[in-house]
Amino acid sequence: MADKIKVSLLGSTGMVGQKMVRMLSKHPYIELVKVSASPQKIGKKYKDAVKWIEPGDIPENVAELPIVSTEYEDHKDVDVVLSALPNELAEDVELKLVKQGKIVVSNASPFRMDPDVPLINPEVNWEHLELLKYQKSSKNWNGLLVKNPNCTAAILSMPIKPLERLIKINATYIVTLQAVSGAGYSGLPFMAIDGNVVPWIKGEEEKIPKEINKMLGKFEAGKLKSSSLEIHPTTTRVPVKVGHMGVINIVTDDNVDEKEVQKALDSFASLPQHKNLPTAPNKPIIVFKDEDRPQPARDLQYYDGMAVTVGRVKFEGNVLRLVVLGDNLVRGAAGITILTLEVMKELGYF
Amino acid sequence: MADKIKVSLLGSTGMVGQKMVRMLSKHPYIELVKVSASPQKIGKKYKDAVKWIEPGDIPENVAELPIVSTEYEDHKDVDVVLSALPNELAEDVELKLVKQGKIVVSNASPFRMDPDVPLINPEVNWEHLELLKYQKSSKNWNGLLVKNPNCTAAILSMPIKPLERLIKINATYIVTLQAVSGAGYSGLPFMAIDGNVVPWIKGEEEKIPKEINKMLGKFEAGKLKSSSLEIHPTTTRVPVKVGHMGVINIVTDDNVDEKEVQKALDSFASLPQHKNLPTAPNKPIIVFKDEDRPQPARDLQYYDGMAVTVGRVKFEGNVLRLVVLGDNLVRGAAGITILTLEVMKELGYF
Amino acid sequence: MADKIKVSLLGSTGMVGQKMVRMLSKHPYIELVKVSASPQKIGKKYKDAVKWIEPGDIPENVAELPIVSTEYEDHKDVDVVLSALPNELAEDVELKLVKQGKIVVSNASPFRMDPDVPLINPEVNWEHLELLKYQKSSKNWNGLLVKNPNCTAAILSMPIKPLERLIKINATYIVTLQAVSGAGYSGLPFMAIDGNVVPWIKGEEEKIPKEINKMLGKFEAGKLKSSSLEIHPTTTRVPVKVGHMGVINIVTDDNVDEKEVQKALDSFASLPQHKNLPTAPNKPIIVFKDEDRPQPARDLQYYDGMAVTVGRVKFEGNVLRLVVLGDNLVRGAAGITILTLEVMKELGYF
Amino acid sequence: MADKIKVSLLGSTGMVGQKMVRMLSKHPYIELVKVSASPQKIGKKYKDAVKWIEPGDIPENVAELPIVSTEYEDHKDVDVVLSALPNELAEDVELKLVKQGKIVVSNASPFRMDPDVPLINPEVNWEHLELLKYQKSSKNWNGLLVKNPNCTAAILSMPIKPLERLIKINATYIVTLQAVSGAGYSGLPFMAIDGNVVPWIKGEEEKIPKEINKMLGKFEAGKLKSSSLEIHPTTTRVPVKVGHMGVINIVTDDNVDEKEVQKALDSFASLPQHKNLPTAPNKPIIVFKDEDRPQPARDLQYYDGMAVTVGRVKFEGNVLRLVVLGDNLVRGAAGITILTLEVMKELGYF
Repeated sequence: MADKIKVSLLGSTGMVGQKMVRMLSKHPYIELVKVSASPQKIGKKYKDAVKWIEPGDIPENVAELPIVSTEYEDHKDVDVVLSALPNELAEDVELKLVKQGKIVVSNASPFRMDPDVPLINPEVNWEHLELLKYQKSSKNWNGLLVKNPNCTAAILSMPIKPLERLIKINATYIVTLQAVSGAGYSGLPFMAIDGNVVPWIKGEEEKIPKEINKMLGKFEAGKLKSSSLEIHPTTTRVPVKVGHMGVINIVTDDNVDEKEVQKALDSFASLPQHKNLPTAPNKPIIVFKDEDRPQPARDLQYYDGMAVTVGRVKFEGNVLRLVVLGDNLVRGAAGITILTLEVMKELGYF
Repeated sequence: MADKIKVSLLGSTGMVGQKMVRMLSKHPYIELVKVSASPQKIGKKYKDAVKWIEPGDIPENVAELPIVSTEYEDHKDVDVVLSALPNELAEDVELKLVKQGKIVVSNASPFRMDPDVPLINPEVNWEHLELLKYQKSSKNWNGLLVKNPNCTAAILSMPIKPLERLIKINATYIVTLQAVSGAGYSGLPFMAIDGNVVPWIKGEEEKIPKEINKMLGKFEAGKLKSSSLEIHPTTTRVPVKVGHMGVINIVTDDNVDEKEVQKALDSFASLPQHKNLPTAPNKPIIVFKDEDRPQPARDLQYYDGMAVTVGRVKFEGNVLRLVVLGDNLVRGAAGITILTLEVMKELGYF
Repeated sequence: MADKIKVSLLGSTGMVGQKMVRMLSKHPYIELVKVSASPQKIGKKYKDAVKWIEPGDIPENVAELPIVSTEYEDHKDVDVVLSALPNELAEDVELKLVKQGKIVVSNASPFRMDPDVPLINPEVNWEHLELLKYQKSSKNWNGLLVKNPNCTAAILSMPIKPLERLIKINATYIVTLQAVSGAGYSGLPFMAIDGNVVPWIKGEEEKIPKEINKMLGKFEAGKLKSSSLEIHPTTTRVPVKVGHMGVINIVTDDNVDEKEVQKALDSFASLPQHKNLPTAPNKPIIVFKDEDRPQPARDLQYYDGMAVTVGRVKFEGNVLRLVVLGDNLVRGAAGITILTLEVMKELGYF
Repeated sequence: MADKIKVSLLGSTGMVGQKMVRMLSKHPYIELVKVSASPQKIGKKYKDAVKWIEPGDIPENVAELPIVSTEYEDHKDVDVVLSALPNELAEDVELKLVKQGKIVVSNASPFRMDPDVPLINPEVNWEHLELLKYQKSSKNWNGLLVKNPNCTAAILSMPIKPLERLIKINATYIVTLQAVSGAGYSGLPFMAIDGNVVPWIKGEEEKIPKEINKMLGKFEAGKLKSSSLEIHPTTTRVPVKVGHMGVINIVTDDNVDEKEVQKALDSFASLPQHKNLPTAPNKPIIVFKDEDRPQPARDLQYYDGMAVTVGRVKFEGNVLRLVVLGDNLVRGAAGITILTLEVMKELGYF
């Protein structure tokens, strides 16, 4: 198909990279044509360079692709570069490609808080892509850089967005129970986390309020102004493979009832749904009324992991409490990168 | 030893019962002389009636004891009846024994919120034993009934007690990550909780605010008046065998710093410490400064599980955050029953 | 479709029952029209009677079906009754239905070793269905009874069948590492098996040699004569949700090499493959050459769980060693019941 | 105490090293006076260099010790150097120290199969220390080198030793279920082994037959002649933290009954028991008659992990089957190094 968007993928052999490879293999109009990985893998076939852990076989068209470098030369023929690079490598590599003219859509943390760079969780703030209209001139870049949020911020921001419209939020107390895959495939030894909880995730509590507030921000006089939601996060690691859960207590002066809240969440829809984009979940938020849901072992499957699930909605005194769960590798990473690209295409950003 | 306190134990073959059997086997002045269990076990030797899961062998003096019933006749020679009965059986059995004149110290939930019954977590509110002076007359009982709190309330109340003295608490947001043993040995199938989190524990969120507020209560005009701390609990079950963790966010108008808080927790001591009671931990609260502690797999061992551990103390804006961890079977159950008995002995209640 | 085979399902709300419900919902010519469960559920809608744990929603056509009893009256209109009943209930219920004229295909253990009842793992011994020709007269039954093997015997017999053709087997030493789901959803408490191995499974070591030998048996003079393979099984339970693994050491006087063995396994095919039956895996045995495979967390997905995977093939001295893995709920239970029915249809048994 | 044996410890901050530090802290006559670790830790205090995971606090006398190098200079004042070095570092470091005159007792794999080096599991083959009488001359070393076996070989050889005396063994089929700690604290990511079994452990199946046969060897004409037991091992990794289990099938022409076997195992004792050495378990083998034992979560505690436990003894046909379990870090590593030193002291080797 002549019109397919050709993309390359940085960090293609990691856990999130593999997830993107699998998701893109069935994509109607995005075609993965180049895969990049660490220097010692360059030249090998993808199937020989990867320790494949996704279900099913390696997509045939990718299995035989040779691993390429992160240099511009190796990506000059693609329309967009997707990045699932580790945070510590991303800054230099991505910046170089953007300066040389590439459009880069990236999951990695550097530049997420840069005022010129949109930080996109599509259903929450696709409008922020408008920043791209000013980015080249303000940055003196030849290409474009778009970021996706931290996996936890991505999941938490989903129910907060419609709630923020419904009620005036005074403060938010969030405790997360995060899966081990959030630290990468080899991020935590079995000996450290099996039968255990670690009540701290390095760097996570700093990112969550900043990223959520940036995503909830509004344009004022051509600039993006972050929101100023008061968020108190505590992040913990639990012995679960996939699925980040957040318990959210929202303090408000408004009076709502639980049914209104459930309805606002359940009916949430945004541009990806309205435009029926291929990777968009029909319903981005699924609400449970059973008290014992959502659960990571049971509730990550909806729309291939692109929906978040919400339960335990309760309004008492001036506090609204809910529990949210999302697939940290799909909704929190691979999926929103692809969905962001679909929105950019839809809106004509390339 | 002629002066030893002779006790019997209801529910002696369960997980908490076994824990008490082991703890009492080394006790300097409490002697376990009768063990009771469900009707079909009556007459069997303890060693044949129990599926022993505590470390080490069954204490020799208990192994050969015959299982007795819960009837008064079988307990008439003991000074005190301890109870680790399941909640659903406890009400009738305990009430009958108390009416017939026994002193019962119990872990089970019935009567915990009865205004005439002290709910004791020794370091937190040993003074409430004074209620016993009025109990016989107000209840028309021949014996006495003392209750210990729910395991989670027991652990959470430990740091809240000294903090409540230090600062004025406006509201408290608590999220717990509770171990599977809290539901009993067979309470949760492996299929239901392995690799999973269940964001709800039946009945737990109702108990926590009530029981904590009762324990924090004060005597006024001969009556115990519950405290009115605003507590918003969310309780979750995590795939951990032993150890309940709580993430506590406390809203306050006061200004304290983290070091003051750590010091108040670290130096907390109460009658059990001052009287150097056998089961009392030297330090009931151990404070960690390492960010990744406390952890259930590493931090349940202090003073044989009788200390709680606290970490992640942080004061920011008007919010004090801390994480507390305790052994739900020892600090949350078996240990405080025994410690309560020691306090009662010390104060001359029998 | 007028020609669809109408079936009812006994034990429809259990773990294997749910698996069958899901598998049948997509079946080209078998239609599930009646669902039965325990007496207290009768009359409820399936969706209200089941605690659904399969991925995805309850199939729409089943969700609204009312639960029926196990009595003949409730099954008289179906062509075949499938049974996922617990072993202890199956004998009476199934026998009654068969006597009253129903064709019953069942996973439960009673009658498995009855000489008149075929014990079918389709690829291994579909020919044994011929026993049905004699069953009515020898048993004086009006219906027919077909059994499927124990889940472990089902998985182990898959590679043994082609190997038995390739070499003369003197003795077989088998150690299994079996998943917790093999004991049923509530079969093992988390406290008992998490972080543990239990080196014994009640009743399992008795079943394995007998059932495998029956499946490997041959017709002689109109009777099925069991094989007499010497099998020494040790069965263990490991903290894995799904997937039974077996380490098989086969002693032989023959000389084969590993490649021959791998080829014989890899190319194994039987009537279900030759007739291209809907539930038949294209390849019933998948052979890995990577030393660290198969693994339950990675290798249960092939052909929706209907293939077994084999690895670690090694021939040294007079010993052939291999490791086999299969989905105990699909290949070991739900899947072979459905595949058995497909074979029966293909061969005109109803 | 002037007469204490002064030892240094290589690899003191690893998991086995920490275990030795804790075990030695209570030792009546061995004193740990120097601790060595990797170059970047040299000069730090032990307490600052170690990520302590053993229960309890770091022993006081060790906590303040400065980390030293592996050079002779840093060990010249100690009587014996103990080594818990990683296999890949051990060869050069240990050889250098031995050549320079130190007595080294080591857990690491290099030199285990050297015919001049005794490979000691004390109860099994303490007599092999006699090799030390010839080692200096045959090797031209100034010091002495003693090795301990691989953890799995150490545990398996315990019951095989008394059985080899009882019956003539034709062949042995062994399947192990090994704990994750056997691969080191960071050896396996949670993502790789949680809820999983990996049916292969690199290098393990090569070591087991060779090491067991060396330990079962006999002196002939001043040389150690390995035994020639036919052992067919398959090694698997299971999601358990500590405790290696082995299922052993022994083929024999002899006729024994299960009780004889249990008695032979139960009554096994050797020089460490006869001399009542401090680290020796009173009973090196504990036999269970309950069918569901031994279990890693319950049975590693006997004699602080120095006993192995055996269950499921069964003799049928010509096959004896048993299951053995041992603490891979204590009986398989730290404990036997210390016990070996005690035997050497007892026998006057220094």
